[in-house]
Amino acid sequence: MIISTRELPEECHSLLDRWGLKDRNVEEYLKEGEALLAWPSQVKDYVGKMPKLKVIQTFSAGVDDLPFQLIPAHVEVFSNAGAYSTSVAEHAWALALALAKNVNVRRREDTVLLHGGTALVLGGGGIGSEIARIAKHAFDMYVIGVSRSFRRPELFSERRGLQDLKELMGRADVIFDALPLNKETVGLLNYDLLSRTKERVILVNVGRAETVVEEDVIRIMKERKGFKFGTDVFWRKGGKENFDSPLWGMENFAGTPHTAGATASGEVLKRALVRACENLRDYLSEGHAENRVRKEDYE
Amino acid sequence: MIISTRELPEECHSLLDRWGLKDRNVEEYLKEGEALLAWPSQVKDYVGKMPKLKVIQTFSAGVDDLPFQLIPAHVEVFSNAGAYSTSVAEHAWALALALAKNVNVRRREDTVLLHGGTALVLGGGGIGSEIARIAKHAFDMYVIGVSRSFRRPELFSERRGLQDLKELMGRADVIFDALPLNKETVGLLNYDLLSRTKERVILVNVGRAETVVEEDVIRIMKERKGFKFGTDVFWRKGGKENFDSPLWGMENFAGTPHTAGATASGEVLKRALVRACENLRDYLSEGHAENRVRKEDYE
Repeated sequence: MIISTRELPEECHSLLDRWGLKDRNVEEYLKEGEALLAWPSQVKDYVGKMPKLKVIQTFSAGVDDLPFQLIPAHVEVFSNAGAYSTSVAEHAWALALALAKNVNVRRREDTVLLHGGTALVLGGGGIGSEIARIAKHAFDMYVIGVSRSFRRPELFSERRGLQDLKELMGRADVIFDALPLNKETVGLLNYDLLSRTKERVILVNVGRAETVVEEDVIRIMKERKGFKFGTDVFWRKGGKENFDSPLWGMENFAGTPHTAGATASGEVLKRALVRACENLRDYLSEGHAENRVRKEDYE
Repeated sequence: MIISTRELPEECHSLLDRWGLKDRNVEEYLKEGEALLAWPSQVKDYVGKMPKLKVIQTFSAGVDDLPFQLIPAHVEVFSNAGAYSTSVAEHAWALALALAKNVNVRRREDTVLLHGGTALVLGGGGIGSEIARIAKHAFDMYVIGVSRSFRRPELFSERRGLQDLKELMGRADVIFDALPLNKETVGLLNYDLLSRTKERVILVNVGRAETVVEEDVIRIMKERKGFKFGTDVFWRKGGKENFDSPLWGMENFAGTPHTAGATASGEVLKRALVRACENLRDYLSEGHAENRVRKEDYE
């Protein structure tokens, strides 16, 4: 039996009803549930009530909100990485271009031509790959990718690892952060790394806010007007993403309140839900699926 | 002898010195000048003093500021169309994406996914073609072009004429205006045409402000919050582009004060000047060149 914490589109029922998909009044079925479809922050309320649980499939791309310490070791976890890639990558480019072109700044100030420049893309998954594709095909940029693994390696002019970041920061005209949040990436972009960038540089974060150190990015933005920062993601305070930030008042900032992904549009969300169902179907019928989460990265 | 109203880069001298290029203290040479390199608004101060004038090459892409009534019929005019295409097209996309993604709007509001949608590009010259290329290659859009002639027809899914605009307005998710300003295009986008668009639509103008009727676009933006307008160009008042506009205060607006082109960056301007020199070289040595202006369009 499969438990879903939210009602699912008809397509999901076609894919999963043969395993007994329940997406309404699920409380009474939890004891029998072997698979769970959920947003990561909901999992803590379910996992203890599902003794037969074998697999969790998240609706979200990021899984850093999962309560890993509560999930039994034998339970497999799959994320929905890639499901929001098109939407989030487009959003990342909106932030980068708004900063490059000083959109809504009434003074006449120098703009930045991105065409032919260098993009540094942190994260080689679905979102990072789509950002790289646009950099390459729309703006003829040299694209340096930083990732443990690359979903579409052919889109990157150079493929590097996190250990090379010190050396790479100074080569980019625009830096995109599409990293997952885990042990390796939390607080990664600190003052030391940020200060190694070019005098004029654009940093855009569409991953998780906590991969950037909030006070460090604010400090460098105050010190260098040529350092521009755009973000769709904000730092959590008391467990909740907090959109109140001194950044909104700063001239070298562009922001959106976490609207790059599914909250954006009913159609994007629906496609993402169906994609999660397809991936769970693959796992249940074939024993393997995409986006298996390496739990050891988060513990 | 060639007269230039401004000092030119070294490359221009290499290209044109064999015809006697003068770009400093030009007053004393005007009587002998057969060719004039100038910004359109400067031409009125030169044309009467140059009895031997045979050809004008502008530094700008647009030529609507030329004093056509003062230019003798036998004088050929060439524009610098295309010289700013890369920069202006990138800028057009910055405005479109900023509106699609509500950049710097702190409330969480629905965004628009452009990927896979329909773009209507008015103008098939250098700028329109580059806008179309990005629409197609970055965002997989269906691209309808409206132009008298297409510089790169292969980039457009459909190629149409201005007479079809009534029917085409309602098909687009985003409309780019990269039209030259002439008899046919002045005041073209009026209330009637604008009201034929989809309920949710983005209009971006990087051509000339006067192809859009100012009060009509403001009226429709007040009536329909889903009508978003972005512009880099503003309506001239007393002969001068006037950046004071009620638009800046409106929520469904994004603007920049005419910074899409050469004012933006020293490098873009230098390349544009050299391109004008190359085109004049072609005309002087071969008798023909690109961007010949059809004066009858403006008279």
